Amino acid sequence: MSRSLNLAVIPGDGIGQEVVAEGLKVLSAVLPQDVKLETEEYDFGAQRYHATGETLTDADLDALKRHDAILLGAIGDPSVPSGVLERGFLLKLRFAFDHHVNLRPSKLLPGVATPLAGQPEIDFVVVREGTEGPYTGNGGTIRKGTAHEVATEVSVNTAYGVERVVRDAFARAQARPRKKLTLVHKNNVLTFAGHLWTNIFNQVAEEFPEVTTDYIHVDAATIYLVTDPGRFDVIVTDNLFGDIITDLAAAVSGGIGVAASGNINPGGEFPSMFEPVHGSAPDIAGQGKADPTATVLSVALLLRHLGYDAEADRIDAAVTADLTERGSLPARRTSEIGDALAVRVAG
Amino acid sequence: MSRSLNLAVIPGDGIGQEVVAEGLKVLSAVLPQDVKLETEEYDFGAQRYHATGETLTDADLDALKRHDAILLGAIGDPSVPSGVLERGFLLKLRFAFDHHVNLRPSKLLPGVATPLAGQPEIDFVVVREGTEGPYTGNGGTIRKGTAHEVATEVSVNTAYGVERVVRDAFARAQARPRKKLTLVHKNNVLTFAGHLWTNIFNQVAEEFPEVTTDYIHVDAATIYLVTDPGRFDVIVTDNLFGDIITDLAAAVSGGIGVAASGNINPGGEFPSMFEPVHGSAPDIAGQGKADPTATVLSVALLLRHLGYDAEADRIDAAVTADLTERGSLPARRTSEIGDALAVRVAG
Ligand SMILES: CC(C)[C@H](C(=O)O)[C@@H](O)C(=O)O
Ligand SMILES: CC(C)[C@H](C(=O)O)[C@@H](O)C(=O)O
Repeated sequence: MSRSLNLAVIPGDGIGQEVVAEGLKVLSAVLPQDVKLETEEYDFGAQRYHATGETLTDADLDALKRHDAILLGAIGDPSVPSGVLERGFLLKLRFAFDHHVNLRPSKLLPGVATPLAGQPEIDFVVVREGTEGPYTGNGGTIRKGTAHEVATEVSVNTAYGVERVVRDAFARAQARPRKKLTLVHKNNVLTFAGHLWTNIFNQVAEEFPEVTTDYIHVDAATIYLVTDPGRFDVIVTDNLFGDIITDLAAAVSGGIGVAASGNINPGGEFPSMFEPVHGSAPDIAGQGKADPTATVLSVALLLRHLGYDAEADRIDAAVTADLTERGSLPARRTSEIGDALAVRVAG
Repeated sequence: MSRSLNLAVIPGDGIGQEVVAEGLKVLSAVLPQDVKLETEEYDFGAQRYHATGETLTDADLDALKRHDAILLGAIGDPSVPSGVLERGFLLKLRFAFDHHVNLRPSKLLPGVATPLAGQPEIDFVVVREGTEGPYTGNGGTIRKGTAHEVATEVSVNTAYGVERVVRDAFARAQARPRKKLTLVHKNNVLTFAGHLWTNIFNQVAEEFPEVTTDYIHVDAATIYLVTDPGRFDVIVTDNLFGDIITDLAAAVSGGIGVAASGNINPGGEFPSMFEPVHGSAPDIAGQGKADPTATVLSVALLLRHLGYDAEADRIDAAVTADLTERGSLPARRTSEIGDALAVRVAG
């Protein structure tokens, strides 16, 4: 029986091109012989926007929909006004494909540099809601550009949207050895959304008696992330809080050079998308300086999502081995790191 | 000529009582002989709420209004549902007295413990907007408690509100040696509010040609706060982002035991309020374990706000000296730290 993996590849802007090439190199090396890998490249990003004014059309969405999954490098360039590609491509895609589970694991591997003193143990995963909250684009502006301008942003939270992501997070916590889930919100100030999140969290908790739960305000969570990150196992949180704390989580657990993420549609109605947490880093683009590790780890998340657990494990192990040795090696170029990882996963 | 300082004192809950006592001790010790200090204590907090159901009445506001400034310990207790005292007292007061400049300095003093490796130089101040953004309490809930519940939170941002706080931050940056101001927002996602903040920031910048400016997304700001906090001089940001990053800032620059804040009404129409960033810490309340340093530093902010610059400087110097020596001293009780600081400022 032969299997196939049909991938949409979006290298995007800046270092996106370079890191995606290495992600695909490692993917090819790790896939079993009988899996036919098909990839189709898409040219989304700043260049296409400048050439056509398009960021992501309905036809694009139809085309992307036919793939098993999407691998993205990075989207964004200083030549494009802030917000155009973010709202017009990245967020549009997350919303269109209902990527409501935004999965961001943080693990500090032995020997990897962290800004924290004392090399603490860090191994948690953030389940960030991906389709609601302040990211919906609701809101508006009146009297724009005048001294009487008023601009609003509306955070929209639904029982439907909160329950499904909370349930997903409980299931992930249940499957981990420590079985601990922390809700992060600001329910003492954002009381409308806060009560919805807290009530649903407490309700779903009853179905998972083995999972230990707690609640932390988002401001306090940033303190724990630098003073006691080991206290976290699984975190579930809203779209904006998740955005903020996962950058901090990446920073303390080895930097955004190694932070992977998945924009997941758990039901499989739409393809899920996997991407490094870092951006397009135009300052180092094209120089072979980017670290492809975050993209390679995103490929592991992609494989795990599609059921290739053994292959995902091999990538994780290869990255762990590579990072552990890195301190004692001279600096390597993007492609050299990719080569080294490809050799490890194949071997 | 004799002067007077008429202070409203709100010890509040938990360790609030203990730390405020030390703050007043140091205040009495530092004030010149000719200044007549009058204090009036108010019983806001959990006890009064349980006894009367009141958090902050119109009559309370009238009474508080007659003071030159307010010193607050901490408000909050697990016996009160989340949000009741926060929205009913703390935020109600900030809004009623138009405390639109929420000032939070961060300085890592020599010898003070930080979770960051390498003891980086940290000396910046966050100007957090205090009366707008997602803190306005706008929003609501429909179909509460059902599977079809929708909860919204509306962030309200006005040109009036943004301009005055941005202008205040520019003036503060102008007065500091490095003259650098960073706007922190999320203008690539929250594009309505983001454009308002960014446009006003750029406009006001033209009036302060000596101030260097830059812009950082809030998620990236959390990375810099742990990898390169020395890059910040003055930060201006929205109410919620300010809440989040100032807890992180406190954590990296010596912990919330030493983080002071001012809720300032710059025009002086209403009294400003000064309080430690930490909460009521019910777990250690009444044990003499709380560090009163954050409250003492808040007293310094209070004095500076009222024009007692020399006295504020003496408190800052006393705290610096005390913290620098602390590593080599046995642990002290709350009142012992207060005594030591009172001796230093008097001497
Ligand atoms: C680029 C931006 C739209 C995005 C987000 O805010 O979600 C990014 O910061 C991320 O975390 O993936
Ligand atoms: C207690 C809460 C209302 C408050 C806030 O969110 O502003 C606190 O976290 C703070 O930072 O002063």
